[in-house]
Amino acid sequence: MEHNLPTATEGQPLRCKAAICRKPGSPLSIEEIIVAPPMPREARIRIICTSLCHTDVTFWNMQVPPETSPRILGHEAVGVVESVGADVTEVTKGDVVVPIFLSDCEECIDCKSSKSNLCSKFPFEFSPAMPRDGTSRFKNLKGEIIEHFMFVSSFSEYTVVDITHLTKIDPAIPPNMACLLSCGVSTGVGAAWIAAGVEPGSTVAVFGLGSIGLAVAEGARLCGATKIIGVDVNSEKYEIGKKFGLTDFVHAGESEDKSVSQIIIEMTGGGADYCFECVGKKSLMEEAYASCRKGWGKTIVLGLEKPGSKLSLSCSEVLVSGKSLEGCLFGGLKPKSHVPILVKRYMDKELNLDKFVTHELQFQDINKAFDLLIEGKCLRCVIWMDKVML
Amino acid sequence: MEHNLPTATEGQPLRCKAAICRKPGSPLSIEEIIVAPPMPREARIRIICTSLCHTDVTFWNMQVPPETSPRILGHEAVGVVESVGADVTEVTKGDVVVPIFLSDCEECIDCKSSKSNLCSKFPFEFSPAMPRDGTSRFKNLKGEIIEHFMFVSSFSEYTVVDITHLTKIDPAIPPNMACLLSCGVSTGVGAAWIAAGVEPGSTVAVFGLGSIGLAVAEGARLCGATKIIGVDVNSEKYEIGKKFGLTDFVHAGESEDKSVSQIIIEMTGGGADYCFECVGKKSLMEEAYASCRKGWGKTIVLGLEKPGSKLSLSCSEVLVSGKSLEGCLFGGLKPKSHVPILVKRYMDKELNLDKFVTHELQFQDINKAFDLLIEGKCLRCVIWMDKVML
Repeated sequence: MEHNLPTATEGQPLRCKAAICRKPGSPLSIEEIIVAPPMPREARIRIICTSLCHTDVTFWNMQVPPETSPRILGHEAVGVVESVGADVTEVTKGDVVVPIFLSDCEECIDCKSSKSNLCSKFPFEFSPAMPRDGTSRFKNLKGEIIEHFMFVSSFSEYTVVDITHLTKIDPAIPPNMACLLSCGVSTGVGAAWIAAGVEPGSTVAVFGLGSIGLAVAEGARLCGATKIIGVDVNSEKYEIGKKFGLTDFVHAGESEDKSVSQIIIEMTGGGADYCFECVGKKSLMEEAYASCRKGWGKTIVLGLEKPGSKLSLSCSEVLVSGKSLEGCLFGGLKPKSHVPILVKRYMDKELNLDKFVTHELQFQDINKAFDLLIEGKCLRCVIWMDKVML
Repeated sequence: MEHNLPTATEGQPLRCKAAICRKPGSPLSIEEIIVAPPMPREARIRIICTSLCHTDVTFWNMQVPPETSPRILGHEAVGVVESVGADVTEVTKGDVVVPIFLSDCEECIDCKSSKSNLCSKFPFEFSPAMPRDGTSRFKNLKGEIIEHFMFVSSFSEYTVVDITHLTKIDPAIPPNMACLLSCGVSTGVGAAWIAAGVEPGSTVAVFGLGSIGLAVAEGARLCGATKIIGVDVNSEKYEIGKKFGLTDFVHAGESEDKSVSQIIIEMTGGGADYCFECVGKKSLMEEAYASCRKGWGKTIVLGLEKPGSKLSLSCSEVLVSGKSLEGCLFGGLKPKSHVPILVKRYMDKELNLDKFVTHELQFQDINKAFDLLIEGKCLRCVIWMDKVML
């Protein structure tokens, strides 16, 4: 992985191209922007690869008030540090880094605890700006402010990221693989590994076989689960899922007389040890809970439902079943300590990343990535920035 | 603790007195009954002490179909083995035993796992009969079948209990203390110790300060929790609770502008590490969940709600908070391995049992125990059987 960095840009505003979301649901427009130099505890990053995640599509489609500024989406990426602001010792120019939407300040009670990955110094929110001062580092050539997204904004040749949102990684990993660890694949693998703590010999059920669900299956496989059941409305997902460790499949909606949970309870002799909801649908969260085993079954919620949705559990089942329910962001992974381990497991040929990349595009074709994801034709579409750079 | 056992009763039906529930909500009637000898894998027990638990009151009050037979309530007790059926090696005549509503067969996958206390060989249910053959060991002198309750039926001088529902204990513990470990106190202490796994330095919030809630506080104190917040509608509970480790109190319903969870979040700087719902009220389960800390907060449900009640959680809070929710029976304790540890901790003067016993009565006065519990005048009322025996 070679990265020819432009020179003499440090400390200066930098002109580059970015794909800007100006109107919900309309194609991103590739425009020239000015990226301010990093402020204290920030780094400016040259993005090498970025990939498209469903959360980008959700926010791209979201109707926002008309006065909202245009913004730069994208939060799954890998890049190289171009320059750092004051008081940055963790990374230096030329380091390969993965920007991550969750902060890991390494100082607060949550970051210091092994039980949480939810930094309380810079809590996660869908903020339009930098976490530390609440302002933007982007403007266009006319001076119009352009908003950030998820503290990353990777649909730009350059972006500025707070140091707490950056994880330095081994530069030996190919960038089109590394970017997957920035969000989706880490979330799924982490959910099995850290949030659930799947043990060897476990039975696992994964609800929804998009990239996150397949990454859960891959994580469960790495943890030694022996039965990994995929649940999806699309039966073609079974073949795809086998590449990621899936051993069984339930075609949701196919059976007229049995619910998915009844089928899973029969297949597993009582319910799965771990169930993962990867769609963001309350009825599926309830079905996942119903599918897990009494005594120790654990349901992990990874999917983002519509605001205001409530999931409903029978009080007596909660009491007498001994099951548990929890949610997690980023699979419960702590960005700075766990992501480098996933990089190593990829380099050691244990973690399967390659098969997630179904498409690769150049930056100028970024809108095609949206089409592919929306049409369900791809798992991960990796976008290479360099061709536009040169 | 001396136990003069009657002689020459083994293998024979045995005539004794029992308090029989014949009509919902009406006083129990003390009648002579015939207790059959134990069948294989059963033991006949002479009850020494029994205490009254809210579940007895709930089922005493429950409107049952008219054809339902009369039954013998009571499930919190200690006794002495009078005789054993075939194939019993675990206990022998004269052993002091605690009957427990949860089975611990020591053979099934759940009993062999450290992660579950829900025996799958004999799953818990509110059965009217013995677990193994589904028949009763009780009849009255006219031959009328009398039903069992929770596999214990301790409101009788003698009862028959399956071996999987019996835990042999150190006979040195006073019987009026030992009986508390048969259900309520073990449930609360176990919920803090095993189900939640409270660590030293934790903050804990306990919703509902009846015996179970106070036992949770006692358990949290034993686990080294440093802040133990009680929540109750009755502010007198704070003084009582201090005897069991309570350090703080929230008077539920007192504040007009703040919810209990807002108050607890303020008191703890973000929420309690562990919240316990000990009432059986869905709104309180939701409030407990809201009161626990993002990142690692754990809500444990101990209270039994009305059948059909559903608790409702915000999908997005589940996802982004990283909190967990689970329920447990018997505090997650494994009857045969954990209860003897609690006995030892009492004998070592670590576990406080004495202060739970606010009243002691003779068996013929058992209906007064119901009045005391219903009127909220007692924590545990222990009923001694021996005076009626002699």
